[in-house]
Parts: sequence; C-alpha cells; structure tokens
Amino acid sequence: MKKIAVLTSGGDAPGMNAAIRAVVRKAKVLNIEVIGIYYGYQGLVEGQMTTLQVGDVGSIIQRGGTKLYSARYPDFKQSDVQDQAIANMREAGIEGLIVIGGDGSYRGAMDLVKKGFPCIGIPATIDNDVPGTQYTIGFDTALNTVIDAVDKIRDTATSHENLFIVEVMGRDAGDLALYAGVAAGAGAVIIPEVDFCIEDVIARIKRGEYRGKMYNIIIVAEGVMSGTELARLLKENAGITTRVSVLGHMQRGGSPTGRDRVLASQFGAYAVEALVAGKKGRAIGVRNHEIVDYDLTEAFKKEHATNLALYTLATELSI
Amino acid sequence: MKKIAVLTSGGDAPGMNAAIRAVVRKAKVLNIEVIGIYYGYQGLVEGQMTTLQVGDVGSIIQRGGTKLYSARYPDFKQSDVQDQAIANMREAGIEGLIVIGGDGSYRGAMDLVKKGFPCIGIPATIDNDVPGTQYTIGFDTALNTVIDAVDKIRDTATSHENLFIVEVMGRDAGDLALYAGVAAGAGAVIIPEVDFCIEDVIARIKRGEYRGKMYNIIIVAEGVMSGTELARLLKENAGITTRVSVLGHMQRGGSPTGRDRVLASQFGAYAVEALVAGKKGRAIGVRNHEIVDYDLTEAFKKEHATNLALYTLATELSI
Amino acid sequence: MKKIAVLTSGGDAPGMNAAIRAVVRKAKVLNIEVIGIYYGYQGLVEGQMTTLQVGDVGSIIQRGGTKLYSARYPDFKQSDVQDQAIANMREAGIEGLIVIGGDGSYRGAMDLVKKGFPCIGIPATIDNDVPGTQYTIGFDTALNTVIDAVDKIRDTATSHENLFIVEVMGRDAGDLALYAGVAAGAGAVIIPEVDFCIEDVIARIKRGEYRGKMYNIIIVAEGVMSGTELARLLKENAGITTRVSVLGHMQRGGSPTGRDRVLASQFGAYAVEALVAGKKGRAIGVRNHEIVDYDLTEAFKKEHATNLALYTLATELSI
Amino acid sequence: MKKIAVLTSGGDAPGMNAAIRAVVRKAKVLNIEVIGIYYGYQGLVEGQMTTLQVGDVGSIIQRGGTKLYSARYPDFKQSDVQDQAIANMREAGIEGLIVIGGDGSYRGAMDLVKKGFPCIGIPATIDNDVPGTQYTIGFDTALNTVIDAVDKIRDTATSHENLFIVEVMGRDAGDLALYAGVAAGAGAVIIPEVDFCIEDVIARIKRGEYRGKMYNIIIVAEGVMSGTELARLLKENAGITTRVSVLGHMQRGGSPTGRDRVLASQFGAYAVEALVAGKKGRAIGVRNHEIVDYDLTEAFKKEHATNLALYTLATELSI
Repeated sequence: MKKIAVLTSGGDAPGMNAAIRAVVRKAKVLNIEVIGIYYGYQGLVEGQMTTLQVGDVGSIIQRGGTKLYSARYPDFKQSDVQDQAIANMREAGIEGLIVIGGDGSYRGAMDLVKKGFPCIGIPATIDNDVPGTQYTIGFDTALNTVIDAVDKIRDTATSHENLFIVEVMGRDAGDLALYAGVAAGAGAVIIPEVDFCIEDVIARIKRGEYRGKMYNIIIVAEGVMSGTELARLLKENAGITTRVSVLGHMQRGGSPTGRDRVLASQFGAYAVEALVAGKKGRAIGVRNHEIVDYDLTEAFKKEHATNLALYTLATELSI
Repeated sequence: MKKIAVLTSGGDAPGMNAAIRAVVRKAKVLNIEVIGIYYGYQGLVEGQMTTLQVGDVGSIIQRGGTKLYSARYPDFKQSDVQDQAIANMREAGIEGLIVIGGDGSYRGAMDLVKKGFPCIGIPATIDNDVPGTQYTIGFDTALNTVIDAVDKIRDTATSHENLFIVEVMGRDAGDLALYAGVAAGAGAVIIPEVDFCIEDVIARIKRGEYRGKMYNIIIVAEGVMSGTELARLLKENAGITTRVSVLGHMQRGGSPTGRDRVLASQFGAYAVEALVAGKKGRAIGVRNHEIVDYDLTEAFKKEHATNLALYTLATELSI
Repeated sequence: MKKIAVLTSGGDAPGMNAAIRAVVRKAKVLNIEVIGIYYGYQGLVEGQMTTLQVGDVGSIIQRGGTKLYSARYPDFKQSDVQDQAIANMREAGIEGLIVIGGDGSYRGAMDLVKKGFPCIGIPATIDNDVPGTQYTIGFDTALNTVIDAVDKIRDTATSHENLFIVEVMGRDAGDLALYAGVAAGAGAVIIPEVDFCIEDVIARIKRGEYRGKMYNIIIVAEGVMSGTELARLLKENAGITTRVSVLGHMQRGGSPTGRDRVLASQFGAYAVEALVAGKKGRAIGVRNHEIVDYDLTEAFKKEHATNLALYTLATELSI
Repeated sequence: MKKIAVLTSGGDAPGMNAAIRAVVRKAKVLNIEVIGIYYGYQGLVEGQMTTLQVGDVGSIIQRGGTKLYSARYPDFKQSDVQDQAIANMREAGIEGLIVIGGDGSYRGAMDLVKKGFPCIGIPATIDNDVPGTQYTIGFDTALNTVIDAVDKIRDTATSHENLFIVEVMGRDAGDLALYAGVAAGAGAVIIPEVDFCIEDVIARIKRGEYRGKMYNIIIVAEGVMSGTELARLLKENAGITTRVSVLGHMQRGGSPTGRDRVLASQFGAYAVEALVAGKKGRAIGVRNHEIVDYDLTEAFKKEHATNLALYTLATELSI
C-alpha cells in the first residue's frame, strides 16, 4: 500500500484533528502517502483533496474542529455517486480510505467496501453512541464542557436557591447527559434510554427540598424533550418554577482533553495498520483498554448500550 | 464605628465573594466587626444575619456566586419595610451597611440613607452598566466566559462553514456583547445602544461571504431581540440559514478572573474606609485606574455610556 | 453495619472529595452513618472525627483537594499505634473503614485488616500507579493540567523556535509523562519504565530539526531525572540549549475532570457496598469498564504495568 | 501611505496575534497593504517578509504566541544593521513600521525613527512594565494563568496545611506578582519595587499561623530572588519548611483573555491610524480608558510605576 486517504464526516468532534495527525504520522513511519479529503464524502466525490505531509499536521493535536472540514452529504447514498468517489480515489492512486465520524458516516464507508474499496472507520462523535466501542473521540471533551458549564450554573443556583434545567446534546443516546449528571451531581437526569416519568422528577425535586437542598439542577438529553418542554411540564404538573439553560453548539468544540487526544492518536495509528494489514470494512474501537477492530456493520446494526448502573448511581448520589 | 453589615443583592456576579472577603478583612484591620446579612434586603428585614470572622472568608476569593446568597425583594420599596430593616440593624448595633449589587440594589440603599442610615454601594453585575464606574465586578469574568464559549462554537462553525448567532446577556446594556464581539472577532454585534438594522447585518454577512470568509458568528444582546428572532429575520429577509446558541445562565457563574478579584478587593476595602470616614449614600467605582466614590443617586439617575468607538472598531476589524 | 468511617491519606488528588461524597450518600441510601476522619491515619489515632451528613458533602464534587485533609504519618507502622486507631473506632461504634489514597495508604489499611478491622481501599493518586486498577482517581485531572500547561508552553516554543524540557510528576511511574507526551505531541518522553538513553533523545531532537520542526518539547518524569539535569546532559553531550519548566505542585490540584468525578463516585459507592457485603482487605478498581474489588495486598505486591504500546506510539507520532 | 509593515519582537505575549490582526484589518479599511516581517528585527534585516491579506489573519485572534515569530537580535544595535533594515523596507515600498513588543523592542524602533523611518510601538509584554501605558498586551492573560495555577496549588496547600512559595515572572517589575498576590489571596507578596525584609515575611507567616490559618501561599517575583532562595532563607532564619513552585514559561502562553484581545485590537487599529496621520516615534498606550500615543522615548526613559496602594491592600487583606 503506497497511498491512502482520510476524511472527516458528520458532526465535528474534538479530537478529529488529533486522529488526522496520527493517520498521517503513522503512515509516514510505514512509508505511505496520505491524501486529505476536504468536506467529507462531498469532497471525495468532487475531488477536493490535498497531500498531507508530516509538517501539515504539526500543532493541530490541540485544536478542536477538523482541519479537513466536514459536511453532511445525503447524496452519497446513491450508487453512482459512490462510483464517482471510488473512481476519483483510484485515479489519484489511493488504495484505502479512513473515515473519521459517527455511525452515520460508517454507512457510506460500508457502501464503498461493498463495491470493493477498502475502508476503515474511526468513531468520532460527542454522543459516545457508536456500538462496539466503549468510547468515541470527542465524548470526554464534551463531557468536560458540560460539567464546566453546569459548575458555573451551580454558582448562580446556589446563590439564589434556584432550580435549573440544563439541556444537553444527545438525540438517541443519553451518555453525555448521564455522565454529566453523575459528574455534576445533578438532582435528576433524563435520558432516552430510561422511560420518562414526570412524577418521578417531581418527587425527586420535592425530596431534595425536604432534606434542605437549597438548589437543584436537572439535566435532560435533547432527545427526550427540550429543556423548555420539561419546564412547562414541571410548572403545569406541580407548579414548580425553573430556569432553563440550553448548552447548544459549544458542546461540539474546544481543545480536546488528554483522553480524547490519546484515544484519537491510538485510533488513527491503528487504522493505518489495519489498512496495511489488508483489512477492510472494519471499525476501530477501544474495549478493556485495548484498541480493537470489528465489523463495520456491527456499528450500525447493534444498539449502543448505555451504562444503566451509572444511571442508578446518579439517582442514589443526588438524594 | 464598631460594627457594620454587608449584603449581596440582585443577580449574582463572580467576584461578590472576593468583595465580601475584602470588607471583612479591611474591617478587621480597623477593629470593626462585620455582620453578614443573608439573602440581601429580604434577610435584612427578616433578621437573617451572622458575624463574619476573618477565617469565615478564607478560601472564598476564588469562588463564583455569593456566600451570603442573594434575592430579589420588591417589597423593600415600602417605607415600613425599610424601617424594619433599620430597626433590625440598630438593634444589632450595626452602624453602617455595604450593599454589593447592581444599580437596582442601589435604590434600596439610597432609601435607607434618606432615612438616616449610612450605606455604601459596591457595583457588582456582569452587565457593566452601573453609571459612574468604568467597570463593575463580574463583567470581566462574564466576558471571558462568553469568549470561551464563542471560541468553542467557532471550532464547529469553521469545520462546517456555518453561520452562528450567539445570544448573550444584557437587557439594557450591550457591553458584554460588544466586548465579546471585539474579542471573539464576531462578524456583527447587535447591542441596545445602536439602532438595529437588518439590512446592515445582511450586508455584513454577504460581504464576508464575498471575501471568502468560511464561517461567521453574530453576537446579539438579549435586550435587542432573542437569537431565535434574529434567525427568523435573516431567514425571512434574505433566505440566510443560521444556527442559534443562547449562552444563558452560565454567564453569571464561574471562578472570578484576576481582574474581577482585584477590583472586588479594592472596592470592598475602600467601602469600609468610606463608611469609617463618615461617608453615606456613596457608590464606589473605578475611574482612570483609581478607586473613587460618588453620589449613589448618580448611579441610577445617569445613563450608562457605552464605548461607541469600540463598536466602530468591531465593525472594521471583522470585515 | 450501622456506622463506617472514611479518611483520605497520602498526597491529595482531585476527585477525593467526590469519593467522600459518594461514600456518604451511598451509605445514607443503606441507612449507614458515616464518620469523617480528619488528617488521615494521624487523625484516626488522635480521634479527630466528625459525623458527615448528606448536606455536608453537598457542592464538593467539583472541588480539588480533600475536605477531610490528608497527612503523611509514618508512625502508623507501629503496632500499638494501629491498636489505638482500632480502639478509637470501636469506641465510636465504627464497624468498617474506607481509605482513599495511593498504594502507600493501602499498607496501613492492610495492617488494620490483619488485626481484624474491616478496611476497603479506594485508589486515588495522580500517578495512576496502583496495581490492579486501570485508573486511579486524580490521574485524568492531572493529565489535563499537564497538557494545558504544555499547550501554553508550546505557544512560546513555537513563537521563538525553542526546545523546551517539561518536568512532570511521577517518581516510580511514568503514566502521567507518557499520556501527556502522546496528548501534547511531545518530541520525546522520558519515563522510569523505559531505559534512558541520552543518544536517543539527541537523535530525536536532531531528526526533528532535520525535517524542519520549528520547536520541540521533551517531557521527563521526575523519577528519571530532573529537567535541569536533562538540560545539562543535552548541553554537555550535544551542545543543545534548552529551557526547563518544572510543573510542580499545581499538578495535584484543580477541579476534577468529568472522568475523575464519575470514577470517584463509582468507587465510593462500591466501597460502601463492599463493606456492607462483609468484605475486608479489598481494594476497589476499574477493569474493562467495570468496577471490581481485589485483594488489597495485590496493590502493593505487584508492579504497576505501564502501557508500552503507548510509548511506542508516542515515539512514532512525534517524528 | 500605501504600504506598511508589522513585526513582533522580544518575549512573546498572548494577544500579539490579535494586534497583528487588527493592524492588517484596519489597514485594509484604509486601503493600505500590510507586510508581515518574520522573526522581529532579525527578519527585517534578512528580508524575511510576506504580504498579509485579511484572510491570513482570520481565526488567530484567540491564539497565543505570534504568527510572525519573534526573536531577540542584539545585532540590531549596530548602525549599519539598522541601515540594512531601512534599505530592505524602502526597496519593498514600505513606508512605516509597527513594532509589537516590550520597551526593549522600542529601542530598535527609536533608532529607525532617528534615521528617518516612521515607527510606532505597541506595548506587548506579560510584565506590564512599559512606562506611559496603564496596561500592556499579555499582562491580563498571564495574571489569569498565574492565579489559575495558584488556585490549584491552594487545593494541595489546604489539604495538607502546607506553606507554599510560588515564583512568578518579573525581572524588574512586580506587577504580575502583585496583582496575582491580591487575586489569589497570597499571605505575602515579594516584589522588586518594595525592599525585601525576611523578618517581615516570617512575621506574616507566624501571624497567619497564630490566627489559625491552615495554609499559606507566598508569591515572589523572580527579579527579587528565586523561590528556592526564599525557601532557604525561611529555613535558615526561622526553621520554616516550605514547598516551592516555579511557574515558568507557561506564563507567556495561552489563549488571550477578553481584555487582552480587546486591548490588542484597539492598539493595532490605533497604530495604523497614527502612522497614516504622519506620526512617527510614538508609542501606543491606554490611559483612563482611552487609547493614546506618546513619545517612544518616554517608554524607556521613565520608570514603570507600580501600584503601591495595591501592595498595601495585599498586605491588609491577607491577615
């Protein structure tokens, strides 16, 4: 293998740059040239690419976002569009592709694999919802961004004895809300994986008041409902007044944490090794402290399993 | 003077604790006892108070929020309620009161002064909108919280070539939006002190696109309109799609910056000196690097003047 | 079991407070009273203790350091001193003890177990060097503190094209230096677990210069040698001029990261469950994403194994 | 004026990039081309320069260090070397030069002015020691870096009841140590502007112990003595044991604070206006909230005045 390509796809996540750097540097060690594709699959089809030298990825390990830009590109579901992508890569002498993104991005990679083009997926999403890996790149950074924001809100909540609702990202997956709930000592955590019950939330709030808790913070994953909707329910069902904070897009940015940088570096290097070893249609992951690869289809066929013991813990510790 | 009291009132601001500490420590140097009043004017009327020793304010200089809690208490406008507050203080042997808060909080202090009770105001609000002082406690911290958030949003904006609207606090005052706009290199800043013109905003966005700017961030003070409303206007008037981020309550919290801690320390110490010197009905402020005092009524009679040169600069530098 | 005690011992680590909180709150769920021992084993012997209510551990999850204070207390090796500790606990009705600290702290716990007093150890040290667990409380926070510092140093190194040596904590264990080296993209990492060879370091520096690298950062664990000593060696052996930065004690402090808070919460709750289940002489740990317990003696009999694959990765990615 | 140049010189300071950006953007508004000189005066002499477009300074406002690199270049004191610099600029059509740096960097600029080449100086140094301006670019960021580090050290100091010495930058100027001392609540601050007296420091430590202060932090500016030297003096003169932390080079780096970014933007824009207005040999500064210019020679003839009232305050508040 003499030449491979790398792209970032879907929502950006902190650590994507660290993964790109690792791909380029590891490839250099193995005497492989790396082509960076701009704008994800769209750039692949439109032929927007550049050679990445070792120096091009210097001083990016600490940067949020992605140097290669990302884009959502629904057209990539079309067979002829995929053919164009493969044709472009073959013409450029590219023999394998590394896709950095969430499980949605893996589908495009799998389509290319089915047409005979070797692809490897690296999981990068703040949602931590890629089945088959215990962590995804970006989750740890987003977690720390959320708890930093909640710590700030707590200052105000404490000073005024208020009840706050904090809405965090997570459409189908509640990991970010759940881990943040434990880490920030939230009074209640509402996630898609656990049936929502307004009576429970009200009961928790009342119990907190009863034991003299002077403020309370409830974390809700956007996938269950918006913070505003929850505020309305609490008002209507129990006359409880709350303030709502929607953390929004800042959760996707920021300089990656140590953990995300290390994970991204490990994933990037391993992905190059996998391609060189002739693997194709494999997703990279971490399990029990080891970097592993597994069938790409597992990542979107299975459901992401959340840590329900942690949910119970969140409930117990915020009495 | 043997005994004074201190309270925090209105919205909390980072650095209030540092001011409380300075009051207690400076008073100690002058052999004056300090009584801390909980929950602002409400606690004053209800008699919720405690003696603050030097050690009680140890290790709070770095904490956001306020150790004395704060509250809004509209009832304090009533004359008999004010009388009760003064009676409570006299009974406790308190000879002067230091009020830490925004210009709204100053009104209550002025009412007490009119009834013969010495009060001194220390300006603390993230809005920086207290007339007569160049800075208020909390503004610098909030500014850094905002630009930290915008820096994170920029990572995502850059990666996806998006247009973002960031809504920041500021009902009547645009300082936070304006300084953040300059500091974050925003493409446009919308503040209450400058007439809003949707055509201008659209023109600025188009110009940015024309010169190849790959993303853009618009900062809007909540006092002008919500981020969502601005998004709607841009969509309806020019077909421009944006993403909206509302920074919300986290802007009030966090460990105070160096500047806010120093300012709070200076204000707190000066306020004690002012009381001891027999001053009453005075507001503390900073002008030209000097700590000053001035008539409390100035602080709510005059209008806060924003730095319009800085607005022009924001416009020029984000071409 | 009706009453248990908790103490923190040895060097403090961010997340100790989160662990104390979890112990108190989980015990409350199980109707167990918790006694907090001040100053580690010393306070145990001197009888410095207090009851910890649910509210006493409110708003400490985000605080660095330890609310119970810590101390080193060599006298605890003496049998009669240990007897005194047990007598104190028995008199207070305490039936089990949770020790939060490094493997050094575990020895004292083991001595108590041998004398018939149930103890459980929770690993908390920024060195990540407790055998039997993949992570210790505090390591993740320290890692992020180090890379934050190195990112700042990089700004200066880049601007001046300098070579920097950064000395980080780690007497016998190189995990902090190693993970930071990968995460910060250090040009070389020097850790106790890998034989030091000055020629290798010089060769790496020269290679970096050759490929046009404009600055370089070398991370050295204090256990191998001081930064100053390394600077001297580079100067004497190759005429290379460097600047040295010793990160020092700030590595032990700071608000714990999300990961450390979650881990501490899990460990604290699990430790209470273990005591209640009649376990004694067990250490808590995390392996493959699961919280486990294992024989306390393993933690100081075995050697901590570092991740040598990560060392190789650090070497490859900083070409 | 059609073309001007900009360079950064001396030690780097956070906010230099924001100043470069402001120079380029303000010049664009006035239809002036900007040439960036690499490596300060050395690059000027060696002809290392590049045209800076509006887009070249995009997304650098938040970056520490300097995009133009910096260097110390003692040869620039020689007259013929200065002639070469002027010849290079004239050949490139450059009509004015903006120098971003400390007062040392101003000397080179003044030499060029004396030979007839218009120069304007922008003060950028973390030491805040440029006479004639109340603040320099970088000081505010360095201040926050120091107090962030001291806050972390405080966690450890509190947990172990230790006495810590923190050595901060500042050869001839104590502003950084002084402001950090107030902001971090240090038990003593030792700066070049105040005569050092070991007995005073010892007395302050003893007094703190007497009133039950459980830990103490002493901040010393490197210009007075090293932290290690102070530790030795305390040991020898009073048997006091301390731990020493030398903050080092990280103080120069990091993303600039809001204040530094705003100041840098104001200075950069004003410098361009000054050049266009035909000014030469002027330094830019801030006084009483206004951007001003003054004779460049004032900046190195006068002595920087420190705020001694703040020193007294530091002493009083840390009783």
